[in-house]
Parts: sequence; C-alpha cells; structure tokens
Amino acid sequence: MTRIGWAGLLPQLDRESIVPLYRQIYEHLREAILAGTLPESTRLPPERTLAQRLAVNRSTIVHAYRELVNDGLIEQRVGSGSRVVPQLRGGQPERAAGVPWWVTLPPWRVGEFPNVLGELAAKHEPGRISFVQGVAPDEPSPLSELAKSFGRVARDPRFVLSYGDSEGYEPLRAAIAARMNARGANAIAPSSIIVLTGSTQGIAIVAQSLAEPGDEIIVESPSYPGALQVFQINGLRAISVPIDDDGMRVDHVEAVLRTRRPRFIYTMPSLHNPTNVTMNADRRERLATIARRAGVPIVEDDPYGPLATGGPPLVALAPDHVVYISTFSKTIAPSLRVGWLAAPRTILERLLLRKQAYDMATSLYVQAAIADYLERGYDEHVGQLRGELLARRTIADEAIAQHWPAGLKVSRPAGGFYLWTSTPRELRARALLDASERLGASFLFGEAFFANSGGDHYFRLALTAVTRPEIAEGIRRIGEAISALRS
Amino acid sequence: MTRIGWAGLLPQLDRESIVPLYRQIYEHLREAILAGTLPESTRLPPERTLAQRLAVNRSTIVHAYRELVNDGLIEQRVGSGSRVVPQLRGGQPERAAGVPWWVTLPPWRVGEFPNVLGELAAKHEPGRISFVQGVAPDEPSPLSELAKSFGRVARDPRFVLSYGDSEGYEPLRAAIAARMNARGANAIAPSSIIVLTGSTQGIAIVAQSLAEPGDEIIVESPSYPGALQVFQINGLRAISVPIDDDGMRVDHVEAVLRTRRPRFIYTMPSLHNPTNVTMNADRRERLATIARRAGVPIVEDDPYGPLATGGPPLVALAPDHVVYISTFSKTIAPSLRVGWLAAPRTILERLLLRKQAYDMATSLYVQAAIADYLERGYDEHVGQLRGELLARRTIADEAIAQHWPAGLKVSRPAGGFYLWTSTPRELRARALLDASERLGASFLFGEAFFANSGGDHYFRLALTAVTRPEIAEGIRRIGEAISALRS
Repeated sequence: MTRIGWAGLLPQLDRESIVPLYRQIYEHLREAILAGTLPESTRLPPERTLAQRLAVNRSTIVHAYRELVNDGLIEQRVGSGSRVVPQLRGGQPERAAGVPWWVTLPPWRVGEFPNVLGELAAKHEPGRISFVQGVAPDEPSPLSELAKSFGRVARDPRFVLSYGDSEGYEPLRAAIAARMNARGANAIAPSSIIVLTGSTQGIAIVAQSLAEPGDEIIVESPSYPGALQVFQINGLRAISVPIDDDGMRVDHVEAVLRTRRPRFIYTMPSLHNPTNVTMNADRRERLATIARRAGVPIVEDDPYGPLATGGPPLVALAPDHVVYISTFSKTIAPSLRVGWLAAPRTILERLLLRKQAYDMATSLYVQAAIADYLERGYDEHVGQLRGELLARRTIADEAIAQHWPAGLKVSRPAGGFYLWTSTPRELRARALLDASERLGASFLFGEAFFANSGGDHYFRLALTAVTRPEIAEGIRRIGEAISALRS
Repeated sequence: MTRIGWAGLLPQLDRESIVPLYRQIYEHLREAILAGTLPESTRLPPERTLAQRLAVNRSTIVHAYRELVNDGLIEQRVGSGSRVVPQLRGGQPERAAGVPWWVTLPPWRVGEFPNVLGELAAKHEPGRISFVQGVAPDEPSPLSELAKSFGRVARDPRFVLSYGDSEGYEPLRAAIAARMNARGANAIAPSSIIVLTGSTQGIAIVAQSLAEPGDEIIVESPSYPGALQVFQINGLRAISVPIDDDGMRVDHVEAVLRTRRPRFIYTMPSLHNPTNVTMNADRRERLATIARRAGVPIVEDDPYGPLATGGPPLVALAPDHVVYISTFSKTIAPSLRVGWLAAPRTILERLLLRKQAYDMATSLYVQAAIADYLERGYDEHVGQLRGELLARRTIADEAIAQHWPAGLKVSRPAGGFYLWTSTPRELRARALLDASERLGASFLFGEAFFANSGGDHYFRLALTAVTRPEIAEGIRRIGEAISALRS
C-alpha cells in the first residue's frame, strides 16, 4: 500500500465559486487518480483530517469521497478508511483500464440544487397544497379561446408540415414588437425579435453567447433559481448584489464595476421573482447609464412584465445594451413553451445561431396559434389575470394576518405571482418546509434563490398554482407548522 | 505611425480545425489589438504579404481584415493599406476605450456555412422547385388525424396549463420505448427516455454534456450539416471517416482510435443523411465492439430509423455505450418539434440537467397530442409514408435517366428522403446550383455535409418537400443546367 505526501495534492479551493466545495474536491481527486498522480492502492487521508486541512466541514469530504466510490475510483472499508482501488492503472487519464467511459466525462457543473429546475417543472403531489410552481392560475382560463386558435391552424399544412424560420413566425414577431412598443419599449422592430422555446432558452442563449465558462456576471440576490442554474451549469460565476423595495441596488452594481468586469448584468426589473418588486424609474435610468458607460450589457428578464402596470421596460432606456427576454408562459400557458428575445442588431445573428443550435426553430404550429390568439382573446385575458393576481394576494394577506405569528416579514408589493417571506432567527426555512409538508403544504425554500450563499431564512409561496380556497388553507397549515416548531 | 516586427504576431494556424482559417486569423488579430500588443495606429501588412507568410489564399486575409473593419478595430484606405484605428487604447482587453461592448464578446465559432441551419429551416421561395428541405411530403398527410388528437387535448388544463416533467410525458415515453423495442431495441425502459424539443436538441445535449470545446469527435463524411454546425459552434473538432454503400467505414474508426481519443462517434446508421445508406449488420456489430473495447460512446442519430425496414438500432448492440436520438419531425411533422433520446442510466441525469437548462421541458400539450396520435393514426401513416418515399425515388430515377447525362453518380439506396449525387470533375456543385437556380430549381451543395473539406463535387436533393410532378420537372431543370454548363 502506497503512502504519499499530500501537500501537492490538496485542491486550491475557490470559496467564491458557484461550484460547490465538495465538487471541487471530488473533481480534483478524480483527476489525480485518473492521471496516476494518486497511484492505485493509495490511502486517502481520513475524512476528518482532510476536512481540517482544507478548513471545510467533514460532510463535504464525506460527500466528495462518496462520489469517488460511486465512480468506482476508491473503495472504503470500516477500520481501514478509503483508498484508490487496486486495479486502476495510471498513465493517460482516459485510458485507465477498468474505468467506465462515463467516469471520464468533462466536469459536471451542478451545485447543491441540481433539482431546482426539475422541481419547478414537477407535477403536484396529490393531497398537498403546493405553492411551488409559478404557473398561471386555472381561472381566468385561456383554454376555450386558445383551443379555438389551435383548431384554426391545426389543419393548415403551412403551419404544421414546416420547420418555419429560426427567427420565428413573422406575424407573431410583429405582434410581439407592437405590444412591447405599446408598453413604451421605444421602436422595437419585428426584425430584432427572435421567438424562443420558452424564456429559459433565452437565458441559455445569453449564458453561452455573451460569456464563457469562468466569466463573471452580476445577478440580483435573491434571483430566479432557473436562471441561476443555467448560469451555474455553464460555469459562470455570479456576483450577487442585493435588491430592496425599489429594485436592484444599482449603487452596488456600480461598486462591483469599479473592480470587476462582468460579462452582463442579469436583472428582472418588473414583478421580480421571488420578491414581486418592480425597479423604480430612477434606478432604471441609472442602471441604463452605468451599462452604457461601462460597456456591460444588461439581460432584462421580463416574464411578468406584461402583467405589470409600471413604466417601460429597461430596453427602452438602453436599446443598444439590453437583451430583453420574455415569455407567454405566465400570461397564457406554460405548455406553449414560447417566449422571445429582443436584442441589438450587433449581436442578433450570434444569438440566432445559438438558438438554431438548440432546436432549429420553435414550433411553427404553436406560434401560429398564439399569433391567432393575440388577435382575439389575449388582451382581455391578461386584464382579467391582473385582477385575479391582486385578489389572490388579498386572500393571502388576510390568511397571514389570521394564521401566522408576528416575526415573519412578508414582502409588500402585490400584483405578481409570488409572496416572499423572511423568517425569524430561530426558524430555518428548510425546517419549516419539512414541518409544512407533513401538514400538507409545500413551497420553495430560500437557498435556491441565492447564487452564493444565504437564503436559509427565506421562502417563496407561488399563489397561482392553487385554488383561491387553497391559498387560505395552505397558509393556515404553514402557520400551524410555525407554531409547532416554536413550541 | 508605428511599425513593429511581425514574427510574434503571426497566428499558429490549425489547418485541421473546423474553425475556418480567416476566423483564426481574425480572432488572433482582434485579441492582439484589444490587448495592446498591436498598438493603435499600427500598420497591418498588406493582404498579399500576410497571405504569403501564412500560406493562405489572399481572400482569406481580405475576409479577416473585413471582419476587423466591421468591428471598428482597423481602418482601410486606398493607397495606405490597413491600420489599427488611432483612438484605441491598449491595456486590458475589455477596457479599450471606443470599442463597443459587443466587439469584446467571446470568440464566435462559426464556420464558412453559418447559414446551413438557417437554410434547412428556411421557407421555400415561390416559383422555385426546392429540393433543399428534408420535410415529410404533403401526401400522405397526417393532418386530419393529428388535428383530432390536438383537439382532444387542447381544452385539458392538465396538458395546457402545466410545465410537465422535464423528462417528458410518461405515456409518451412508454409509447416511444415500446416502439423502439418492437424494432428490436432490446428492453429500452421508458425511464431511460428523455423527450426533446426536436432531435437537434439531442445533438446539442451530447455536444455540450459529453465533450468540451477543443475535444475531438468522429463523424461520417458526408454527414448531416445541422449536426456538424452544432458541433462546430460548440468548438468540437470533427475527425471525418468515410461512408460507403455498407455504411460508416468502421475500419477507419478503428484506425483513428489507435492514436486519438475522441469523445464520441457520431453516426446515422439507418437511411443516412445525405446518402440514404443503411449500415450493414457486420459493421454494426463491429462498431459496437469497438465502442465497448475503447470506451468511446456512440451517438446514434436515427431520425429516419422508424422509416427503415432493416434490423435493430445500434443501441440494441451496445446499450451501455450508445446515446440514441430520434424525432417525430420526419414521420409526423417538423412543426411538432418533438424528438427523444434514450441513454444509459449512468449519464441520464447529466443529459437531463442539460435539457432543463435549454428549455425546462418540451411542450406538454404537444406531447399529449402525439401520445394520442400514436394510439390512432401513426402506424398506418408511417406505412403509407414508406410507400410514398419508394414511389418518389422511382419517379426521380426515371427523370434522371431521361434528363441527366451520364457521368453523374447517383447514390443507389432507396427508401429515405434523399438522393445524393456526385458530379464529374469539370462540374462543381456550387456552379451547378447557381445555374439551376436561374432555371428555377434548388438543392443543397455538398460542402455543407463535410466537416473538414471536400464535397464540392456533390449535392443533395430532398425528394420530399416537392410534389410528385415537381420531382420530374425539377430534375429536368437541373439536367438543363448541366447541359448549359457543359456546352
């Protein structure tokens, strides 16, 4: 059995990275084993010892070693610790005999929340009141009118038997541009619109087209977990700046830009997910000015913007520096998987090629149906939806006043899908989730919304994926869980 | 005006790369200018001189300089040549004053054919007989039955008002697995299927999950341009191996694996695009054995497989080493944008997270409609489609015999969408395309199908995007163009 000096084998941990520490340690050791610098049968240091040397929790090392066991690279026995498996051969990393091919794949950049997107996309569990998913409510329902629009295009070979253009269906792009301009977006041309397969695709496009792995970006804290996961899987390093009742703290953005050179600033300025906050006019002006002056583009994620009643989107203020992304998932239906981006002409082709390289084109059939629906029921539906969201928030506020103890801080702005809550010091959101789920109510805990750290005293309720009566009942159950935990 | 020594500034050209030479030169010079190693006002060498030094065509340098002019980095004047613009500042690359932000974006890996996917997705031009797009023919039409399936699900909130699971709609996954197994795919489980937004998404997933930029892969030569473009934009280096009447030259794959370590082998073993060739049983066995022995996974792209009458897919022979990708675009309709992959359990989660990071989930509404259609009209439709493809090929063969001179070699296998032709030495395919378009017929020229070089004496006709009478007339027009060029 080989024993070796450890100094050179310890990983340089990057504690700012969005790659979790256990994964950094695992990948470092994996490479050392496959490359032969950690020869076969080498004993690894005890978990506790390595944890001390690296100044991390012991559970981090346990986690890293477990991954190596899963890969068949080390073995663990009670009493004799962990060692590199004997049958491995050193030499070229990918020629190590006995190692299955999938073990030698490129590093996999998943963090502590690999299932966030999965959870967001997951179905409800029966019997549980789930405040998890940000889907539009069942009522008002677009289904009846939407089904008519689908019916109108379903037998037309031009729409069904064709790929269509990668940019999207021309009449839909024109209708999108017209609605953006009606909101004050200042002369957006249909030709600057690319129709997307949902707004997640837009986030993937900017993550892969405007930045490279290792690059830094600025995000709000908290922010939309789906976007954070896309950034993470693409190796981007998120610099978090806080958000308050007036939106992103633009003064923090300025401070970051004094010393760092992020590739873009990701913000959701209208009905922000999860806080419902809308950025005020002063901050919008200042952020646009900063972006222009520093030459850093803004990615304006605006899924809830069409439901907001405030001023124009950011893209109106800095048209050459904003990539605007939105979707019909929140205003019509998530199953459409249709969103769009609007970008400066200078980068449009770059973004379009990336979109093509994901899925060629978005379903022309669905696009044509949406274009039809936009001419008919859409605007009325959106108006009703705005009213419904306000009504639901009133129900939630009343239930909270009745069932929750003082000490939980609930974000004030109404109008969006969400209710964002901070808990008192002694109450961690994950513990509250466990207790609430036992009582039949679930929500998303806060950590998922923070790129770097924090969030363990926050949680988000989506008020839309449940019925009106379920809002009050679910909030009551959570209140019961709080009482149980405090007693 | 500054003059400097050139030796250190010449790029190291990689003539094997799929990044075109002009782009390598452009990116090298761009970096040198932004980094200040080529200071402001520096004169660039005349195009002819630099071309000689680098042993490239003068047009390559012209192209590279033109890109720098477009970026605002150099200026060109008649009589005094090209120089770095004076107002630039050296120093940190991305802080150069006066340079717009989009100029400093990461390198953009597009090759000589940036519009191939765009062309594939493009609409037809009126009046022209277009053999370009590989879309299913109008007849037999799935529209009537398909519209009924869409109608059945369009008013169901479970399908329309939900994101659904990222893996896909469970009954659809089960139906896909059952059909693969009926083709001999050997116990594919529904849980190993991920529903995709078209098969291009599957190609993007393997390109980004199984490899990293700079990695090598093996592809057939010729191969599907859409896949080659996805590989290119993701920085993969394609090693081409030839294909003959029995499929991919597996002996060449073996030879490559003796000295190289590609990340995967990309092949279309059934009704290969563009040649229509189906790999024979011996080669399939041998390729599976090679993959297992070398520990290199196979990406089996099988869009036309459900239309083939041959044996089981490759995934049946090496289930732990094959990522299988297919689609309903060719058998039902491209506008559905629904495909799928089947992958070994060992890498499934990795692939699923990547899919989530592109678009969360594929339209549940469309998935549910397809699941309904699979229970009703699908199998009958596919049977009729097979007959139609054979009939179209017969029409094409008769027209070729009548209208084309000897000397063009037409690929023999029938049954798929395509006809692949090589031209005699004096007839370049691009010249033929120009002449044919003037006479009202278009096709895809061969270069787009070759990852490295070659193809200028090949072209592809898609026999499906036109009517039966147009097949004969279009082939007649191309024959007329050939005669005109030869006279």
